[in-house]
Amino acid sequence: MWNCIFHLSKRLEITVFGGRILVVPVDGSHWINMEVILRELHSRGHNITVLRSAKSWYIPSNSSVYTSIDVPMLEDESDRDFYLDMLLKVQKCRGYPAFIRTFCQEYLITDMMALGHEILARLIASMLDDPVFIKRLQDEKFDIMLTDPALTMGVILGSYLKLPMVFNVRWINVGEGHLTIAPSPVSYVPVSGSELHDQMDFLDRTKNMLHHLYSVYEQYFIINPSYSDIFKRHFPPGTDLLSLQLAADIWLLRADFVFEFPRPTMPNVVYIGGFQCKEAQPLPAELEAFMQSSGEHGVVVMSLGTIVSALPRKTTEAIAAAFAELPQKVIWRFEGEQPSSLGNNTLLVKWLPQPDLLGHPKTRLFVAHGGTNGVYEAIYYGVPVLGLPLLFDQFDNLLRLKVRGAARVVEAYSLTKENFLDALKDVLKNPSYRDNIQRLSRLHRDKPIPPMDNAIFWIEYAIRNAGAAHLQAVGFKLPWYTYFCLDVAAFFVVVIGVLVWVSVFVCRLLCCRGFRRKTKKE
Amino acid sequence: MWNCIFHLSKRLEITVFGGRILVVPVDGSHWINMEVILRELHSRGHNITVLRSAKSWYIPSNSSVYTSIDVPMLEDESDRDFYLDMLLKVQKCRGYPAFIRTFCQEYLITDMMALGHEILARLIASMLDDPVFIKRLQDEKFDIMLTDPALTMGVILGSYLKLPMVFNVRWINVGEGHLTIAPSPVSYVPVSGSELHDQMDFLDRTKNMLHHLYSVYEQYFIINPSYSDIFKRHFPPGTDLLSLQLAADIWLLRADFVFEFPRPTMPNVVYIGGFQCKEAQPLPAELEAFMQSSGEHGVVVMSLGTIVSALPRKTTEAIAAAFAELPQKVIWRFEGEQPSSLGNNTLLVKWLPQPDLLGHPKTRLFVAHGGTNGVYEAIYYGVPVLGLPLLFDQFDNLLRLKVRGAARVVEAYSLTKENFLDALKDVLKNPSYRDNIQRLSRLHRDKPIPPMDNAIFWIEYAIRNAGAAHLQAVGFKLPWYTYFCLDVAAFFVVVIGVLVWVSVFVCRLLCCRGFRRKTKKE
Repeated sequence: MWNCIFHLSKRLEITVFGGRILVVPVDGSHWINMEVILRELHSRGHNITVLRSAKSWYIPSNSSVYTSIDVPMLEDESDRDFYLDMLLKVQKCRGYPAFIRTFCQEYLITDMMALGHEILARLIASMLDDPVFIKRLQDEKFDIMLTDPALTMGVILGSYLKLPMVFNVRWINVGEGHLTIAPSPVSYVPVSGSELHDQMDFLDRTKNMLHHLYSVYEQYFIINPSYSDIFKRHFPPGTDLLSLQLAADIWLLRADFVFEFPRPTMPNVVYIGGFQCKEAQPLPAELEAFMQSSGEHGVVVMSLGTIVSALPRKTTEAIAAAFAELPQKVIWRFEGEQPSSLGNNTLLVKWLPQPDLLGHPKTRLFVAHGGTNGVYEAIYYGVPVLGLPLLFDQFDNLLRLKVRGAARVVEAYSLTKENFLDALKDVLKNPSYRDNIQRLSRLHRDKPIPPMDNAIFWIEYAIRNAGAAHLQAVGFKLPWYTYFCLDVAAFFVVVIGVLVWVSVFVCRLLCCRGFRRKTKKE
Repeated sequence: MWNCIFHLSKRLEITVFGGRILVVPVDGSHWINMEVILRELHSRGHNITVLRSAKSWYIPSNSSVYTSIDVPMLEDESDRDFYLDMLLKVQKCRGYPAFIRTFCQEYLITDMMALGHEILARLIASMLDDPVFIKRLQDEKFDIMLTDPALTMGVILGSYLKLPMVFNVRWINVGEGHLTIAPSPVSYVPVSGSELHDQMDFLDRTKNMLHHLYSVYEQYFIINPSYSDIFKRHFPPGTDLLSLQLAADIWLLRADFVFEFPRPTMPNVVYIGGFQCKEAQPLPAELEAFMQSSGEHGVVVMSLGTIVSALPRKTTEAIAAAFAELPQKVIWRFEGEQPSSLGNNTLLVKWLPQPDLLGHPKTRLFVAHGGTNGVYEAIYYGVPVLGLPLLFDQFDNLLRLKVRGAARVVEAYSLTKENFLDALKDVLKNPSYRDNIQRLSRLHRDKPIPPMDNAIFWIEYAIRNAGAAHLQAVGFKLPWYTYFCLDVAAFFVVVIGVLVWVSVFVCRLLCCRGFRRKTKKE
């Protein structure tokens, strides 16, 4: 349980019952996060409407928690092959030298991003151009928009409907939410995807600067233009995607500084990293029996998240063979053909109750791809990690655990039975990994209020106060040259230039006169 | 009461009883803040030792809350005439045009500051050179140093003793705490003393930039050198005052964003603005009778804080005459000779229970100098303010209330009976002042936990976890040219220069060859 007694159930006086909340979630693992919050909001009497894709993977249309409204499907959204294809491409990049491979991956993501924003822009345009749909939303008289801005639909729709906006956010535009909302000095704030940490040498900072410049290029030359037509037709002049995002009232950021490197932040950023974690529940009887059968050696839990559950055959064979040599038992969330090298100690399952397993006293190690949810669960329950990063932020996430001595990382593209077994044995035998993650766990749980209560408080705050305008910095509304005071700097340069010129002129004049007088005398 | 049910009394599990806390406070109004926290810490079983000046104004040597250790007196510390002298000088500045007067005041403060740091440096040197004193402190085995870094003694002593450090802070070095700890874009973050708000035009930004440059000059050429001898003799090479301040674990900042303009912040900044406020207590019978005698018109409360209680005779006469014309009753904290123009409706007192008066339902208006404590009390109790700023931050403080429509400001140097009466009537009759400050009050009280509980939580957090290193950004440790990536920028310029040079060279070569061939053919 969280190391704090400030719990929402005790907070009654300021509750706003019956707030009307419009939710535009993102599918996949992002939905897992959002749903946890929606359940809590529902239990507190709020009225929730969810916009979902007609062919969503994860978001059910029928729910006791919310009413749903279907919107047209995002093209390719249900195409899991897309991610497998991406995985193969990314794994090719991983073979390149460290300085280059992050740019290779960035380039792949840009490609995907450009396509995604085009599709999104079409979808949003079709909604804004549909007066019946818009009228229906307007008639609902929502109090706030709660959205995950990893995709842009909620942001644009919420702004169009002039709703106060609460973000449940980790990713936005070209990286982690902080990079958009807060000043991020390139010298010690690693840009997302750079695989750098906060202590950088000259080469690292050069790399980080290049990533930063590339992200500025992406923002202004790839993302913003995708929506220019929508903004021209439906918003006041000068609006762009970034300005709408920066106008959000509250940013519930799925981050925590035992995980993120400390860096500047803003008054309307609320940290809710790990909010989904709670005490582990008892396992189903069969699974409990399996855990207990591991004896003193304990259990290794392996899962690679919601997007990519299947690895190349060669890799799964190596993993299975390495597992087979462990004295531990292994439970592995697995899809596809059973590896021939599978040991007797390994149980393959199509789904597993991950938090309850990680919170089980017999669990010794978590073999994970490094998705945010899994990483926070590992921290919460204090289980050391052997990371097998595959895509997106997983490399950055695992790096954060690694530099704190709480994880080891094995690259999937170069995984062999030997190096995987070696890493497994290291993390299982060397107590420093467990000590380090348990220290992170203690710090993570040591909070004045649990992050979930914090999230709910600020959502209700936005309902009560019709947003949180007084927490929004005005700097966001300045043109970039004003923000950086370049006009003032130019003015100073001109003034100093004129002063120097005048003094030189006066000096010369005096010198000449002196010289003339001298010559005259002579 | 605070709009939240998360109260410290309910938080038992994580309490650290018996933490050993070394406190280095600042005298005067700063002590009022610190003492409130010490009482709470004492009630939670912590063991507190306070270093106090042997001739302190406010800090008693005998207390049931703490043990005190006397240190030599700060020269001139008890010299209230110093502040009266300062007041006269500042009021002269007030007559200058707006652009200039803040620089005039800044210059006066620099003068005072230079003297103050010299005295402090001598005092600190005498402590560090006293092995018996240092041994006594070391033997106490304190868990943390809790200090107000407006003066430097606690910071340097705490660092010398290698104690985790918690700041109870509003002012540090050259301005408000944020300016030291967080990135502060000059384009929308007004520098302390500039009397600017966050929406600035070109001239404002130019002024702000000049104030910023001046504060950099003060930091590096006036403050830091005062201590260079101490650092040479007692600390590792490269240490300066700023580096010690930035190494503090937790900054309990006496700020709140209903008052401060929203701006970047840092993970180890905890907002405790208004932490000293609590429900008003019943007044003494006589005072209550006076309040009730005001009938429907209510009462005006006037107090000018702890430092300057006496105004020039001419001014007090004008104030008294204006008060005499009000239908309200007036209670005025006053020292000196009774004004001849005093009305029957005005009660002069040497001391008043300010929070309880401001929280009284009959109170209609607070005539205040704009010290931080009073301003937060006005916000907490929702009482509109007529500001009479005299010194230091009071101009900036009142500006923040004024731009939010919750206060009017009258300059003491130009105060007449007429303009003061006019301002009084305006604030008393125009409901917008009350509406605005009551809106601020509602927002200020709408928090997940009361600021006092937050303060105590983070002090105990620092005790439990021996500081909060994981919340400290590493950027502070970088040299300034690295922090701003100037080395990387220089490298880029060189690379681009070389590339341009090479391309020009190659182009020329090709052109020349082409030209030669052409000439040959011809």
